[in-house]
Amino acid sequence: MAVMLLAGMILLFSLPCVPDRASGAAPASAPLSEATQACIDCHQDLHPGLVADWRAGRHAKTAPGTALERAEGERRISAASVPPALRSVAVGCYECHSLNGSAHKDNFDHAGYRINIVVSPRDCETCHPTEVKEYSGSKKAHALANLESNPVFMCLVEAVDALKGSKGGKEAPIKASEATKDETCYACHGTQVEVTGRKTVSTDAGEMEFPELRNWPNQGVGRVNPDGSLGACTSCHPRHRFAIGVARRPYTCGQCHLEPDVPAFDVYHESKHGNIFSSSGGEWNFDNVPWVAGRDFFAPTCAVCHGSLLATTNGTPVAARTHDFGSRPWVRIFGLIYSHPQPKSGMTFLIRNKDGLPLPTAFSGEPAAPFLIDKDEQAARLDRMKGICRSCHTSGFTDGHFTKFAASVAEADRMVLAATLLLQGAWDAGLADKSNPFDEGIELKWVREWLFYANSVRFGSAMMGPDYATFKHGWWDLTDNIAEMTDLIRLKQDKGINCPCPSSPPTPR
Amino acid sequence: MAVMLLAGMILLFSLPCVPDRASGAAPASAPLSEATQACIDCHQDLHPGLVADWRAGRHAKTAPGTALERAEGERRISAASVPPALRSVAVGCYECHSLNGSAHKDNFDHAGYRINIVVSPRDCETCHPTEVKEYSGSKKAHALANLESNPVFMCLVEAVDALKGSKGGKEAPIKASEATKDETCYACHGTQVEVTGRKTVSTDAGEMEFPELRNWPNQGVGRVNPDGSLGACTSCHPRHRFAIGVARRPYTCGQCHLEPDVPAFDVYHESKHGNIFSSSGGEWNFDNVPWVAGRDFFAPTCAVCHGSLLATTNGTPVAARTHDFGSRPWVRIFGLIYSHPQPKSGMTFLIRNKDGLPLPTAFSGEPAAPFLIDKDEQAARLDRMKGICRSCHTSGFTDGHFTKFAASVAEADRMVLAATLLLQGAWDAGLADKSNPFDEGIELKWVREWLFYANSVRFGSAMMGPDYATFKHGWWDLTDNIAEMTDLIRLKQDKGINCPCPSSPPTPR
Amino acid sequence: MAVMLLAGMILLFSLPCVPDRASGAAPASAPLSEATQACIDCHQDLHPGLVADWRAGRHAKTAPGTALERAEGERRISAASVPPALRSVAVGCYECHSLNGSAHKDNFDHAGYRINIVVSPRDCETCHPTEVKEYSGSKKAHALANLESNPVFMCLVEAVDALKGSKGGKEAPIKASEATKDETCYACHGTQVEVTGRKTVSTDAGEMEFPELRNWPNQGVGRVNPDGSLGACTSCHPRHRFAIGVARRPYTCGQCHLEPDVPAFDVYHESKHGNIFSSSGGEWNFDNVPWVAGRDFFAPTCAVCHGSLLATTNGTPVAARTHDFGSRPWVRIFGLIYSHPQPKSGMTFLIRNKDGLPLPTAFSGEPAAPFLIDKDEQAARLDRMKGICRSCHTSGFTDGHFTKFAASVAEADRMVLAATLLLQGAWDAGLADKSNPFDEGIELKWVREWLFYANSVRFGSAMMGPDYATFKHGWWDLTDNIAEMTDLIRLKQDKGINCPCPSSPPTPR
Repeated sequence: MAVMLLAGMILLFSLPCVPDRASGAAPASAPLSEATQACIDCHQDLHPGLVADWRAGRHAKTAPGTALERAEGERRISAASVPPALRSVAVGCYECHSLNGSAHKDNFDHAGYRINIVVSPRDCETCHPTEVKEYSGSKKAHALANLESNPVFMCLVEAVDALKGSKGGKEAPIKASEATKDETCYACHGTQVEVTGRKTVSTDAGEMEFPELRNWPNQGVGRVNPDGSLGACTSCHPRHRFAIGVARRPYTCGQCHLEPDVPAFDVYHESKHGNIFSSSGGEWNFDNVPWVAGRDFFAPTCAVCHGSLLATTNGTPVAARTHDFGSRPWVRIFGLIYSHPQPKSGMTFLIRNKDGLPLPTAFSGEPAAPFLIDKDEQAARLDRMKGICRSCHTSGFTDGHFTKFAASVAEADRMVLAATLLLQGAWDAGLADKSNPFDEGIELKWVREWLFYANSVRFGSAMMGPDYATFKHGWWDLTDNIAEMTDLIRLKQDKGINCPCPSSPPTPR
Repeated sequence: MAVMLLAGMILLFSLPCVPDRASGAAPASAPLSEATQACIDCHQDLHPGLVADWRAGRHAKTAPGTALERAEGERRISAASVPPALRSVAVGCYECHSLNGSAHKDNFDHAGYRINIVVSPRDCETCHPTEVKEYSGSKKAHALANLESNPVFMCLVEAVDALKGSKGGKEAPIKASEATKDETCYACHGTQVEVTGRKTVSTDAGEMEFPELRNWPNQGVGRVNPDGSLGACTSCHPRHRFAIGVARRPYTCGQCHLEPDVPAFDVYHESKHGNIFSSSGGEWNFDNVPWVAGRDFFAPTCAVCHGSLLATTNGTPVAARTHDFGSRPWVRIFGLIYSHPQPKSGMTFLIRNKDGLPLPTAFSGEPAAPFLIDKDEQAARLDRMKGICRSCHTSGFTDGHFTKFAASVAEADRMVLAATLLLQGAWDAGLADKSNPFDEGIELKWVREWLFYANSVRFGSAMMGPDYATFKHGWWDLTDNIAEMTDLIRLKQDKGINCPCPSSPPTPR
Repeated sequence: MAVMLLAGMILLFSLPCVPDRASGAAPASAPLSEATQACIDCHQDLHPGLVADWRAGRHAKTAPGTALERAEGERRISAASVPPALRSVAVGCYECHSLNGSAHKDNFDHAGYRINIVVSPRDCETCHPTEVKEYSGSKKAHALANLESNPVFMCLVEAVDALKGSKGGKEAPIKASEATKDETCYACHGTQVEVTGRKTVSTDAGEMEFPELRNWPNQGVGRVNPDGSLGACTSCHPRHRFAIGVARRPYTCGQCHLEPDVPAFDVYHESKHGNIFSSSGGEWNFDNVPWVAGRDFFAPTCAVCHGSLLATTNGTPVAARTHDFGSRPWVRIFGLIYSHPQPKSGMTFLIRNKDGLPLPTAFSGEPAAPFLIDKDEQAARLDRMKGICRSCHTSGFTDGHFTKFAASVAEADRMVLAATLLLQGAWDAGLADKSNPFDEGIELKWVREWLFYANSVRFGSAMMGPDYATFKHGWWDLTDNIAEMTDLIRLKQDKGINCPCPSSPPTPR
């Protein structure tokens, strides 16, 4: 008896005591396909951590056929049916790395199997079509084209990433390299992963030939895969475990949505919601579907408001799941000069403002209305979001918050306009050259005003993180930066204006 | 037998395995009052997360009468007795939201009950009078008046928060809006929550009338409540669980005490204490009263040094609990130009320095001594703080630390003085206009010197976070900022001085 | 029966449910020596947290003789044998604080025992000789001399830490104080702890005499101890528990390796590895030896790549343990102007570049090759590091990553060169004075270029933290800072150049 108790205790101690595993019904086990077993026979030794990570996840324990049997609200698979070959085996190496081979330029013969190096959303679509469809229309899926097909943004990318030589005291920009773009903007936005040829690698199993990939590795949200599909599910569901509990934690979004340009994670971390998550999130269940406020979690994470399927304990829906994360918010508060209604399409490079530029507002702030959702859609989305808030807050509390948020966003926009007018004045006075709006000191200060400081105010307001609204890149910097722009303009002006040197012209660089 | 063991294991797994719940005696259960049950009957569906959060807390499981039975050192309630109606029921919705109705301008008739929207410290005082009394005298309770009744600080608030138009190249400040103040300074300091009228809201239960609140929601520490009382216990005890374990974790203080102006959380996080908390805090007990070093926790959090009731395992007191968090420290190291002895009163707006300004020091650093604690009180407080340190450190270690701290604080003050003299020189030379000391570039740099950089050095020293004392806003920035001030002054000067333009006067803006 | 089950459950709940304790075999208990028992008899009351911390650690439960019995790969002790007196008792107060007394200037008579205040690596060497030997040759062990014996670095230390007076508008630097150096640079690099005399302290046990220490407390990695040895094992193994699990968590490295100068922790935190650690690290085992990817951890922490003994589940070695943390990387990416091959010796103050300066590169970037590892050693180290990556990643993924890393490091170096040429131009034009390269505004901007911004790009690339490579001190700042340097130089120049004032000479400060 005591022995049994002891045995039970040892068993308990050998299992990590974490909610993710403890929660819900234990996933059923599932047999491995012969092909997957063959993969594991070698890769277990070559990449033991990779294989163990997969084994710890749901894919290793569940056959899609079993997954289909769950009640609809609890299903983690959106296909109505799955191909027979996949139905009764675990979702293993071969099941994912062999799909749609003919579309995959990275498909190759590997130890007798046809394998793709990169698993793409089009492959995941086999079992998760709704998620892939939602995602495919999102700004995230088009994140690379939204840079590369937008000449204004590419001008900023180049301005930031280009090597600057110095020749006779003048900066001499050199075109930004692929490596630097891959490790900066495209690390989050995604690279175009291309097969450039074949290479021979000597392995423990002798010489083997593999496709050679360019702009790889990358897990950017808008990655262009060798099969032409867009996105990388591993952006948020790393790496071979694909744990929903990781995607639901704020650290996942915090890989890219970070200060100074998009301080979403940072603001959340210092908010009351973030405090509650950090203080007591260890007790929560990040794995349950649907996800229930007051049962599974006690304060929202990013996923709660922006994507997850939410319900009450008695099953009443609170919010539908979406993988188009731009479809919940009504206003877009980062990334661009002024806030504006969310774009209708995820392909923002198609937008044209009244001046013909691919931007959702004019320099004056006027929105490119035909490309943006209208007031009714904005109102409907705000109302849906308030429904999520009301899980824990009264309508008075909720309404009060969003009223202040709207005012804050409008005021941040007005500060940006003040900075824009200052820059316009400097351009008009010949103190800076507007042909490239991103490559001089005064211009970079202007970019800071909207890309860093106004964004911080907007996020600080949206999620109640007052430090970011105040001193950490917020109103303090909105103000200080305008003072610095003013000083710089005067110093450049005064030289010409205050000296009795009527013939000396303004000296733009 | 095996079945029973299995049952035990399932039970174990269905409980979150966290110290907060596992520790201490399980709270007794308590019946709900009829009124609270009526609240829950509706609000359970309307705001399930809110109700579940409350259910998870001690208030839902303990009747105050039972709480009074605990031994004194372990009591979580400071009243000698509680009103009969509250004695035998759980501390539920109605018990808190119905107190002192006649004082509450937000009191209203709601489904047959008189309810207050906002629960205030005066209401909490019913069971927690000692805590409320301590808090009421603190700087935190007066945090709003300490801004609004101090014209110097309001000048800074306005300078930071005002919209700046740009008219003919000149900044044209516009008065800061209520919304922006609410989301910046007043988010932490507290707003004045006012009832502006009534509004009709359509709810699932038909149309209902509610009081309409202004400057709401807010959980700032100095919130002025509709009953006139000061503070919001939810600042640190969120939201309906009121868990002591949340208040004792550093994330709570980290909602407001953050870089760049008050980098307390940030310095702690990178200190050795913070490392130990982050690495092993998951094992600690954040719920026990009294709180015992070496049993419950193994490195201090903010609460250990600044508020909690501490004792040794055998019950010897180490520190008395206080909710006047300014009563433990001997020196005030943030918020103002120079460090200075802690103010005697929480109402700092009453202070007058030798120049008649409501500041605890003169511009030269000279303290407004009559308003500040004296050397004896400082020594007594330092000695008490050292007693806490000696729970884990020898007296030699402790003394060595505080000797260095005193030197660091003094040197940071001297750097601020250097910056102040530079600014004074700029004012005297007409390069800036001292009528508003917070609205020009050179002035904002001076503010950075004390509000960001000297504060970082002081906190970095106080809690041994060397990065903040060195490169992250510390000595590096103290120095670099003075170099920038020097450059800016020279550039403005040189124009007049080095050109043979005797008639051109200095050109202040 | 049910009682026993209940008892088991209570026992379970009274134990913190954390991997560190749950994992591995329970450490054997060990008797205390008579001397240690005497220490505890008093210090248990005086410093209960200190004693409890020790009790919670492995030292309190294991006699070295027992530790020697473990299989080699699992041993936590590297001595072949230990002195008889230590063999059969727990590693207690007296066992550590009494070693090598004659070498310890801080040795003193204390309640009938000869005690050292400071336990040094030379003392730890008794049981851990391999670790101490490795560490002793490292840059960390020599971190103090690497500053103090390098006049270039001391010039920077002084420039940052010196008090700046302001006399007639001119900065008047005063020598940096010992306290400020102790709390800034030397807090991480280590102080020279010296015995300055004796002091009498009144204690609960009456008046006692203790050695008086200078530059104490300190746990810097290159601390010079009163026995002349270098380092503080408590830098990474705090405080009396010496838990391996703390050293293996990133918070330990994050005490010093922090933005803006060494953003290793920060980049890790936002990387995918960091996300996985933050999201699921609570499930991992940080205590097992050897440490196994896929069994104990599922993403690397700092220790995995830079120090820990790694093996596969079947015991195949992946990486040997090292306490010379510079011996794994092939390139040094922080601390100096340009990246360069790792130094051969930990005593970097011995390096001389082609201009005779104690720097690993010239101002042009040319490496001081004779003092740095050669290409073969670099290749061997890179290959070993890739072996660690391949625990979870394919060779194609791994190779792709390091190819981009090499390109990023090279480009960051070229940006630094651009800034260096700008500064050189300013010096040549008399706009700044090169006699001290660290004390003027333009010079501090140049330091930012390499010490903050190029370092951020390099770390952002090394660990895939794109925000640091892009906007958070990365390429954005590399670029913006060059624009600011350019503006400052032009403003200083223009005054002389554009005015018809041929006789006015350049006016360096």
